[in-house]
Amino acid sequence: MKRIDQIEPFRVMQLLERARALEAAGRDIIHMEIGEPDFPTPAAVLAAAHASLDRGDQYYTASTGEPRLQQALADWYQQEYGISVDARRILITPGSSGAFAMLYAVLLEQGDRVLLPDPGYPCQRNFVRLAGGEAVNIAVGPETNYHLSAALLQQHWQHHTRLAVVINPSNPTGTLIDPGMLAHLAAHCRDHGGYLICDEIYHGLTYGCSPASALEHDAIIVNSFSKRWAMTGWRVGWTIVPDTLIEPCRRVMQNIFIAAPTISQHAALAALASGEASETMRQAYDERRRYLLDTLPSLGFQVAIEPQGAFYIYASVAALTDDAESFCWRMLEEAGVAITPGNDFGQFRANEHVRFSYATSLSRLREGVRRLRSFLQHEHWAGVGIADIPS
Amino acid sequence: MKRIDQIEPFRVMQLLERARALEAAGRDIIHMEIGEPDFPTPAAVLAAAHASLDRGDQYYTASTGEPRLQQALADWYQQEYGISVDARRILITPGSSGAFAMLYAVLLEQGDRVLLPDPGYPCQRNFVRLAGGEAVNIAVGPETNYHLSAALLQQHWQHHTRLAVVINPSNPTGTLIDPGMLAHLAAHCRDHGGYLICDEIYHGLTYGCSPASALEHDAIIVNSFSKRWAMTGWRVGWTIVPDTLIEPCRRVMQNIFIAAPTISQHAALAALASGEASETMRQAYDERRRYLLDTLPSLGFQVAIEPQGAFYIYASVAALTDDAESFCWRMLEEAGVAITPGNDFGQFRANEHVRFSYATSLSRLREGVRRLRSFLQHEHWAGVGIADIPS
Repeated sequence: MKRIDQIEPFRVMQLLERARALEAAGRDIIHMEIGEPDFPTPAAVLAAAHASLDRGDQYYTASTGEPRLQQALADWYQQEYGISVDARRILITPGSSGAFAMLYAVLLEQGDRVLLPDPGYPCQRNFVRLAGGEAVNIAVGPETNYHLSAALLQQHWQHHTRLAVVINPSNPTGTLIDPGMLAHLAAHCRDHGGYLICDEIYHGLTYGCSPASALEHDAIIVNSFSKRWAMTGWRVGWTIVPDTLIEPCRRVMQNIFIAAPTISQHAALAALASGEASETMRQAYDERRRYLLDTLPSLGFQVAIEPQGAFYIYASVAALTDDAESFCWRMLEEAGVAITPGNDFGQFRANEHVRFSYATSLSRLREGVRRLRSFLQHEHWAGVGIADIPS
Repeated sequence: MKRIDQIEPFRVMQLLERARALEAAGRDIIHMEIGEPDFPTPAAVLAAAHASLDRGDQYYTASTGEPRLQQALADWYQQEYGISVDARRILITPGSSGAFAMLYAVLLEQGDRVLLPDPGYPCQRNFVRLAGGEAVNIAVGPETNYHLSAALLQQHWQHHTRLAVVINPSNPTGTLIDPGMLAHLAAHCRDHGGYLICDEIYHGLTYGCSPASALEHDAIIVNSFSKRWAMTGWRVGWTIVPDTLIEPCRRVMQNIFIAAPTISQHAALAALASGEASETMRQAYDERRRYLLDTLPSLGFQVAIEPQGAFYIYASVAALTDDAESFCWRMLEEAGVAITPGNDFGQFRANEHVRFSYATSLSRLREGVRRLRSFLQHEHWAGVGIADIPS
């Protein structure tokens, strides 16, 4: 198959496009499909961007990023996690996407295997294929918090396996990797001559816990300002690599994107100092999370493991349907509620699952729940005891 | 060889790093190596960016770009070139780098051949290798204005040749493709089941001529706001693809960069309307160009074809040295003038050539010329009749 034909579209994007078309035609749609913060970028970050424009910061930075931002991130790791890291190892990228595109270009040879969890972030499989690698999707479930485990790595690690890639907390499940397991994963990869890459983009959006960074286990870290600081459109993130990879990464960065956007890098400096704004957002997400966790089961959506991070709830719809994708399209068209079908995230039991995003205000989430309940009751949805659903 | 080991560093970046180190130690360095406008981003663009921040434009745009920017570019092609193009075919990318990374991912399979001019823009070879393709460097000289010709395509196009990639005006030579030849190049690629990609990033920076866009010959176009509008650090460009490629391009864009920076896209809308600012810059570049063309030959730098575009002069140093790279390092260390050795741009007669950039003020260029003359005279530089150099 041609490489381009192996690249899957995001189903959520198709759903979103349809939702936008319905809105353009006058329908009101509740967006529980989008993985993008609904909060504005913090005021301090906007102020820093204005100041950067006024200073005329429009030239390229170094390929590896504005040195002050690298140093500020090193200081932030000390303060946030108590980890000391050389600022030179922190490479500034155009979002976490830029980091992954670059890392796979540096680390993979044609045919190299990359172990990924299924369900997992859909771009990962496509990134790996674009770099000529083979994405190995490993079924994960509640028994491992929907994460790779040392036993799964042991089982699937073969010749030409080069990487295991995890995202902690997980997209789509919002669940965390057990801290002891994180150390085991990193050790397994290292012992087998490979690397663990840990995507920590939802760090800072956790509820009742503060996960450690896999940096303390010498994993390669990917992170971004997009989620925690509500800076998606700014396109700025970072990766932390071992000393030996700095030079090859720099070579690839010089070529594939030259540098991350300059104004965004200056704005990101202010983000690191804006702790209060991000704490306010975190509390709002937590309130929404608790509301949905309290409510969804009564509609027939079952949540196997309480998510402690990100802004997602991964729920079984097995009691409602055996075709989550059709279910989601019907919910959009008939109930005006957009949710993402499981098959955006892999194949393992994908047709039994959907992902709810709560990057939408509590009042809109309440309206979404009201519509779902009304629809499921009115339709006398087959396979669920509708009479048991409280109104 | 491992893929990453095929990726060459930019020599100009090493030179620039050393220049910065010398500056940090108190030396004054004339920068004639950097391919980045020295002008500030036009005021109207900055104003639009401020307004965009105030409006809260911080979310992702569609992967293919903000629709109003796509439409504005379509209108701009009508106005600038008299070409009508469907806005849907114009895909907004993070700089021209993002466009190339995406296009090669879409168009190349492992081992596909891509025909490139030597000398040429160094990233192209690396982009092709990163995508698993084979970069075929074709020696070009003054007889074809340092560009690929139909005869050269005929000679080098084989099975598995998929693309020819040109940049018009050229980096590093500043020369233009003959308009008739451009049509022939596009026809050749099309007739052989491939594509011509034409990088037009230096359009608008031409002197005494206005090149046509290869869009009228149905080539794939890559362009950017970086050079003409002095917006390098903003990371926003575009590509124009045939209808049939929109969907595969969108799939790759969703994955590898999600979208170009949002604020930059809104600023770019204002750039398209700021014709006067870019004309002022163009006239300043032209003045510098004429100064260097009048002066460099008297120092021993020979220019075979007068460059009519970009902000580069590609000069032979055969009268001065047979090792352009060592020559450039000596000029930097001993004369405080940074210029780029030819081997950044390929191998063909690379050791006999250097690239001067005139993205530096006229007064600094004058000082650079003064230093070069003084150095070459004082040193009684071997191989050139120094007595012949006028003081």
